[in-house]
Amino acid sequence: MTQMPQHLQLNHQGQLRHFLTIEGLSRELLTELLDTADSFLEVGERAVKKVPLLRGKTVCNVFFENSTRTRTTFELAAKRLSADVLNLNISTSSTSKGETLYDTLQNLEAMAADMFVVRHGDSGAAHFIAEHVCPDVAVINAGDGNHAHPTQAMLDMLTIRRHRGDFEKLSVAIVGDILHSRVARSNMQALKTLGCPDIRVIAPRTLLPDGIEQYGVRVFNDLRVGLRDVDVVIMLRLQRERMQSGLLPSEGEFYRLYGLTRETLALAKPDALVMHPGPINRGVEIESEVADGPQSVILKQVTYGIAVRMAVMSMAMTGQTSQRQHTQEAN
Amino acid sequence: MTQMPQHLQLNHQGQLRHFLTIEGLSRELLTELLDTADSFLEVGERAVKKVPLLRGKTVCNVFFENSTRTRTTFELAAKRLSADVLNLNISTSSTSKGETLYDTLQNLEAMAADMFVVRHGDSGAAHFIAEHVCPDVAVINAGDGNHAHPTQAMLDMLTIRRHRGDFEKLSVAIVGDILHSRVARSNMQALKTLGCPDIRVIAPRTLLPDGIEQYGVRVFNDLRVGLRDVDVVIMLRLQRERMQSGLLPSEGEFYRLYGLTRETLALAKPDALVMHPGPINRGVEIESEVADGPQSVILKQVTYGIAVRMAVMSMAMTGQTSQRQHTQEAN
Amino acid sequence: MTQMPQHLQLNHQGQLRHFLTIEGLSRELLTELLDTADSFLEVGERAVKKVPLLRGKTVCNVFFENSTRTRTTFELAAKRLSADVLNLNISTSSTSKGETLYDTLQNLEAMAADMFVVRHGDSGAAHFIAEHVCPDVAVINAGDGNHAHPTQAMLDMLTIRRHRGDFEKLSVAIVGDILHSRVARSNMQALKTLGCPDIRVIAPRTLLPDGIEQYGVRVFNDLRVGLRDVDVVIMLRLQRERMQSGLLPSEGEFYRLYGLTRETLALAKPDALVMHPGPINRGVEIESEVADGPQSVILKQVTYGIAVRMAVMSMAMTGQTSQRQHTQEAN
Repeated sequence: MTQMPQHLQLNHQGQLRHFLTIEGLSRELLTELLDTADSFLEVGERAVKKVPLLRGKTVCNVFFENSTRTRTTFELAAKRLSADVLNLNISTSSTSKGETLYDTLQNLEAMAADMFVVRHGDSGAAHFIAEHVCPDVAVINAGDGNHAHPTQAMLDMLTIRRHRGDFEKLSVAIVGDILHSRVARSNMQALKTLGCPDIRVIAPRTLLPDGIEQYGVRVFNDLRVGLRDVDVVIMLRLQRERMQSGLLPSEGEFYRLYGLTRETLALAKPDALVMHPGPINRGVEIESEVADGPQSVILKQVTYGIAVRMAVMSMAMTGQTSQRQHTQEAN
Repeated sequence: MTQMPQHLQLNHQGQLRHFLTIEGLSRELLTELLDTADSFLEVGERAVKKVPLLRGKTVCNVFFENSTRTRTTFELAAKRLSADVLNLNISTSSTSKGETLYDTLQNLEAMAADMFVVRHGDSGAAHFIAEHVCPDVAVINAGDGNHAHPTQAMLDMLTIRRHRGDFEKLSVAIVGDILHSRVARSNMQALKTLGCPDIRVIAPRTLLPDGIEQYGVRVFNDLRVGLRDVDVVIMLRLQRERMQSGLLPSEGEFYRLYGLTRETLALAKPDALVMHPGPINRGVEIESEVADGPQSVILKQVTYGIAVRMAVMSMAMTGQTSQRQHTQEAN
Repeated sequence: MTQMPQHLQLNHQGQLRHFLTIEGLSRELLTELLDTADSFLEVGERAVKKVPLLRGKTVCNVFFENSTRTRTTFELAAKRLSADVLNLNISTSSTSKGETLYDTLQNLEAMAADMFVVRHGDSGAAHFIAEHVCPDVAVINAGDGNHAHPTQAMLDMLTIRRHRGDFEKLSVAIVGDILHSRVARSNMQALKTLGCPDIRVIAPRTLLPDGIEQYGVRVFNDLRVGLRDVDVVIMLRLQRERMQSGLLPSEGEFYRLYGLTRETLALAKPDALVMHPGPINRGVEIESEVADGPQSVILKQVTYGIAVRMAVMSMAMTGQTSQRQHTQEAN
């Protein structure tokens, strides 16, 4: 995994200027981000769901991997901040003309783009862009390979904080295909940073990355043991294409062993939160009755996701702008 | 055909909150809609073609069936009302990840979407969404299977009213593939509700639905008889793919029997209006000289279509918002 | 090549109302356009990069040929002028239903569109639209076949003027596939009109159009001779698909003979500007070190391109609006 120097994401005053990974960010900064998101939640409930914070700014959704759902949340967040939004599905455009990633992004920067929201199949792509391609554009990582999905992690943290409060008293289980999940990585880092004392990962051995212990988590291969008395269950989406790879037993077998059902959920605390980054596979990793049940906050997560993205975008824009002014004054 | 309880489309005060079908709507409501559209027509002629009625609202064009033309009219109408617009071509996105229609829409609702403009290949889809999926989001039917296309019908009504006035004195003929036309169904209902005493449908027997009489129309299999002395001719687009199905004779034969030409148009009243929902097939169902001729209002229909969609959107948003407040106060 | 009567692009007062080609435009008008673009450059540097000049106007990007890069620049320019923007990729929509170009555009006009930005594979398409289809909509040519790409030419002129000043003292070389380049044609016309005394085209005989002399240029088949002492080098993108056509030697051979490298660039003036319309093919027509080197203004061209498109759009909108009023008053 790419080492992420803390300063790359922060400006000279320690403010966020890119948002690439949870790794290396302080508890104070994550808490500030959650507080800011809290304040934006109220915007979504207004008759006029807009604030002028990014008015006249150009936000480019640069998606090298198709993801309508994630792109939509960033597009909405940007529009509610009054930004101008450009959607670029790169796989089907410039690179088909043989242009390099480097040239594509340099061109967008030359058009006076202020922010890139980047989704890429390769781990470290957003990091590479922020460090080597367009350091003066605020870069937001919207998912890079198996590496990180930090806005998803922060919306999960907002969900937990709003529904369970203090992280220092919680047991949180992350269940499923940890090996291929950028969400799991980012969530483990965020929970750790925010002081969660009991982070559990529950997965078959074949779906656990090497060195999982470095995250300070407890590993369980048995769902029924791992879920015991947890406050929060974060289910991961099962990438069905993994089935063919031989890493997994049959879909039915996976569901029997690792599926969250009313029966297995009963092993957690009685009011344990049920979370999932979506889109859910009903009957594959989660039972419909649980996904739609009273303990599920899956749709709340979507609502909080808009607020978190608004918070990330406005904070990074502020930090990046302040950095630019600082650099210009220094020159 | 799905039964549509009147109250599903209306709020506690009888205002429009969804717009799914003409069926069950009162003459007063249709007239109010036409009056509102009339007032928006003027907006399209201004230097600044915008009104702030939907500012800060999020309108999602959720198209399960590709239709650039219809999507464009709704997008423009929403933008002229100052809404934020999201275009979602669902066939190529989430459902390819196996997500259900239900989950896709619930997610959009959780993002605080205010309105769904829905196009779907299945009859009753918009109805299903409004009733069972997202009752608190205003749902506008932009065409569902062979069932209904109510905004097209209302723009046809606006065209007739502006160019011919009182519906109670008119003979209107609808010509072509009635069987597969959502436009025809919605138009028959709208004309009936608005008091049109002589609605004629003209089609070969193979392109007429069973039970067509229930609409209170007169059926003609001979174009030359049916067109006699009508005030308005509404041509339907011929879906060429029907040709292969054996329901139709050859394209040439169809044109000879049911095409609107200068010769057949001469059988109608001398100043009879020529209408078509577009896109037209020149030389298939209509002669170019007629489509572009002095009696044609085909391009006017397009202009009126923007105003009608602005009217539908603003009225449904008002009705839905008022319903939400009512429900919240009741709780 | 289509003859372009000067009056088609200009209104009754000689103001721009369409922007189809450089041909026939006066030096004064091109200079006014460059001056206007200069003033918009400042907008791109503001915190709020927006001016309200096109507020409430509807700009349709009507692309019959996919070009994300060009479409993006026009979309951004329109949004910074506060217009509502519709993107229509026509190849994948209406025309697949068999609708004619004529009907598609007439429909957009009926929706009260104010401006069409047109990209088309056929030479003369934008011209045809402005003359025969929608004369009352401002038509901007965003590239038509091998014919013209006038906004690219004007951004090239802005680049030269800002970095080298007076055109009357300059030697400018255009290098590469002149035969298939709409950029080359428009650039030769613009340079001529602006008074450039020494325009050189450098290409193999197989990539030169017949009658190239009519543009008042000097033709060179040898890059090393043609580059001698020029002030500006405009490289053209090599369309690799030409390779198969037998018009070109191998890619390696082309690079050896016509590639701009540090070695060949040294033959030009020591501070000669290096330009390219992008996207560049590194190692095909230009060496990476030259593209990224101190003499390259390739990314500046992109920045200026937004300002030039804002200038073209605002000037054409003004001219078209004034023409409409004039026509209405005359009636």
